[in-house]
Amino acid sequence: MSGPTHMLAEIGEQPAALRATIDALLPRAADAAALAGDTRQVLFIARGTSDNAAVYGSYLIQAHAGRLATLASPSIATAYRSRIDLSGVLAVALSQSGRTEEIVETLTWAGECGARTLAITNGAGSPLAETAEVAFVTQAGQERAVPATKTFTTQLAALAVLAIGLGADLDPGELRQVPDEIDALLAAPADLDPVVEGLAGVQGVVVSGRGMAYAAALELALKLKEACYLHAMGLSYADLLHGPIAVVDARTPAILLAADSGPTLDGTVSLARRVTGAGAQAYGIGGDRLAAACTDALPGPRLPEWLAPLGLIVPGQLLTEALARRLGLDPDRPRGLNKVTQTA
Amino acid sequence: MSGPTHMLAEIGEQPAALRATIDALLPRAADAAALAGDTRQVLFIARGTSDNAAVYGSYLIQAHAGRLATLASPSIATAYRSRIDLSGVLAVALSQSGRTEEIVETLTWAGECGARTLAITNGAGSPLAETAEVAFVTQAGQERAVPATKTFTTQLAALAVLAIGLGADLDPGELRQVPDEIDALLAAPADLDPVVEGLAGVQGVVVSGRGMAYAAALELALKLKEACYLHAMGLSYADLLHGPIAVVDARTPAILLAADSGPTLDGTVSLARRVTGAGAQAYGIGGDRLAAACTDALPGPRLPEWLAPLGLIVPGQLLTEALARRLGLDPDRPRGLNKVTQTA
Repeated sequence: MSGPTHMLAEIGEQPAALRATIDALLPRAADAAALAGDTRQVLFIARGTSDNAAVYGSYLIQAHAGRLATLASPSIATAYRSRIDLSGVLAVALSQSGRTEEIVETLTWAGECGARTLAITNGAGSPLAETAEVAFVTQAGQERAVPATKTFTTQLAALAVLAIGLGADLDPGELRQVPDEIDALLAAPADLDPVVEGLAGVQGVVVSGRGMAYAAALELALKLKEACYLHAMGLSYADLLHGPIAVVDARTPAILLAADSGPTLDGTVSLARRVTGAGAQAYGIGGDRLAAACTDALPGPRLPEWLAPLGLIVPGQLLTEALARRLGLDPDRPRGLNKVTQTA
Repeated sequence: MSGPTHMLAEIGEQPAALRATIDALLPRAADAAALAGDTRQVLFIARGTSDNAAVYGSYLIQAHAGRLATLASPSIATAYRSRIDLSGVLAVALSQSGRTEEIVETLTWAGECGARTLAITNGAGSPLAETAEVAFVTQAGQERAVPATKTFTTQLAALAVLAIGLGADLDPGELRQVPDEIDALLAAPADLDPVVEGLAGVQGVVVSGRGMAYAAALELALKLKEACYLHAMGLSYADLLHGPIAVVDARTPAILLAADSGPTLDGTVSLARRVTGAGAQAYGIGGDRLAAACTDALPGPRLPEWLAPLGLIVPGQLLTEALARRLGLDPDRPRGLNKVTQTA
């Protein structure tokens, strides 16, 4: 490859994309509130990277907005064609392009089943945006690399606005600080080389986080699968202990992500000690407490726990891009993938 | 190792365990109906193998009982200690032992949040059974191997009874045929050697299925991680196409599971062709149509689609046990795992 990759450029565009998205959507929090009306719960409809964003949304809304928020199984609509009662449900569909037919079809189905419908998409005027009663259009601009980066973080910002609209006990001012904090992360990048070299010789890696950070762990695992063809297993802290901890060994390191505060930090630090105690490498993305328990670490953002995933994924994106190049792969064009995925 | 493993013995005990469980629980379908009363949806609480069973329950209830059925995030209760409105929700907690504190705590929380509570556990008199308003106690008997086998399939049977109790359009007589069909599978075992040899040299494998069969795919991936330390990535058909398809290559085969009928078979057959077209091995577990599209295959059960996961996992269990021994590992005692998992 010659010159910087689209992926690297788009990672760098995130602060501007986030500023534009937050500016566009924060004033519309009231639209989400009006749409939600007397609904009692949220049901997310998404696939791939958008599904990882939905995991963030589900934790955020349940932890801070006092509502049940879970993930739909699109095949109930598209394969089984089941009719279920969704009155009282706010269905929220996420799709980068807004053109994935399975997601459009499932949101349409949800509306027919009685749900109110909201779309979060980067595709203004897309079928998904047109289908939904309210569309939160992210302002990520064009994304040319197949692995999504700025479309993911702007989805997270849209979900933060949604949570605020649903009455979460969260400060919109803190959301407005996120672009500056990511600017700071990008301006003083960590030395990726030790972690890149540590991962360059392995075939598999476990990526784990808990609570809000679990969404960032899932997304990093997906990036490493897509762009580096690594056997990356994204697992929650608890699920990891319920079986797959056996897979961690000298050939299989773990990458652990955690905010530098909040109720899930202690557990992640303990997990790092357990991984290194098993003779495996543990690479941290987070703050000093996590770093101290890991073999090596990349600094995460200085953000409150509820916003940390927007920053935690950034060192992971940079790591993915650098590792792909180190492995002789083009991160912009993974084999077998297109930018808009259709599920037959 | 000398002599047969506990795991192999317990795989063979599944027909008897299923007969006892179905005999004990089918007459109690009405108890579930009475408990569910005017609730409108199901929320599953589980981890590990029990979480894979819950995935089956969520598809079954949504596809056939006309109710929303999704999975809870236990850390909302145990780490974030959030209060959310769960009136109208039937919370169903699954735990083999009934002694995993996180699950007991989350079911207690659900009850305090307004949910009705049901437990599915092999632990009669366990804290989970005592906590729930109604307990469906499975009759798996003692399980000595750490990788769960008969406790998983008896959980699936209990979930089938629950779906019937919730008014699903399903024939209990078909459920009663399952033990005989698994007896037949075990009496004429497939030659595992070609698949064992195909997997003995790889570090990673993708395990995929769609709809009901997705639960069996997730469970097989977990078994292969636990007992064989394989980088086994359990992915739904759709999620696989949204990114991780890139990871499938000559070094990374796929195992695909599908019922031999129903709305997800065509997609799985197409996926098998796509995997082999990418130069990777595809190992099928299912019927003749799937086998014809795969590199090699193990015959699945002759069961209707809604019950197929109870049989599809059996060749996968046998494969896991044989592969572990082939790799020189003791399938009964994976490193780092205990029979009752506590999540701190």
